[in-house]
Amino acid sequence: MVKTKQKGTNAERELIHMFWKKGIAAARIAGSGSMQLPLPDIIAGKNNNIVAIECKISKNDYVYLTKKEIYELEKFALIIGAMPIVAVKINTKGWFFCHTNSLIKTDKAHVFNIKHIDSGQNTLNFAKIVSFLNT
Amino acid sequence: MVKTKQKGTNAERELIHMFWKKGIAAARIAGSGSMQLPLPDIIAGKNNNIVAIECKISKNDYVYLTKKEIYELEKFALIIGAMPIVAVKINTKGWFFCHTNSLIKTDKAHVFNIKHIDSGQNTLNFAKIVSFLNT
Repeated sequence: MVKTKQKGTNAERELIHMFWKKGIAAARIAGSGSMQLPLPDIIAGKNNNIVAIECKISKNDYVYLTKKEIYELEKFALIIGAMPIVAVKINTKGWFFCHTNSLIKTDKAHVFNIKHIDSGQNTLNFAKIVSFLNT
Repeated sequence: MVKTKQKGTNAERELIHMFWKKGIAAARIAGSGSMQLPLPDIIAGKNNNIVAIECKISKNDYVYLTKKEIYELEKFALIIGAMPIVAVKINTKGWFFCHTNSLIKTDKAHVFNIKHIDSGQNTLNFAKIVSFLNT
């Protein structure tokens, strides 16, 4: 469990550095998931364009996110004026991204599925996020 | 030293909650001061208006900030489009705020001095920051 948490933190740091390399300010949020506040894992932005990110790692092509995670991500994003994004690093396949609107909603969870994302018309990727932030 | 660090963290958390009580999204940044990136201690925002904050505690009416701290705060703020602010919690006197432009610059450091801040024409306080973020 600790090892998984460390892997998650490492993935977050990797993503942060990907943004900085593109000239975008990015930071990990302290206490996300533990403080009683609706906080994302990462915030990134340029010229007052902001994205709030929930970050996951997975060995599979899908990830289950709790309704609470998505509710809190969207709440934070709505207040600060950010685009709410889920970022998933999948073993060997790299990073995948989607707007929370593109998650598959079930009774119990919100599902990020790489196949669904790939076939979607509004497929999001890192380059598109960078482009959005630079507008 | 550890005790001082904990007091600093507690002050940051207090400030975060002050913002949330006003309906403003706020978060502590992980790794500020330790990662090799120009990161503030706190970011707060509403409707795409953002402030980036370097947070200090002091027993005195003044605080010395390193040039590096202010350079990094201003760099992050410039990229993301935030107002760069120094927030100081002074024992028994409460919170004081200033834009980095209002710091007294010496050869070795940037000085936050409550007397200088109080007499300044552009005195910043929490209510003014909240008002700016709500515009």
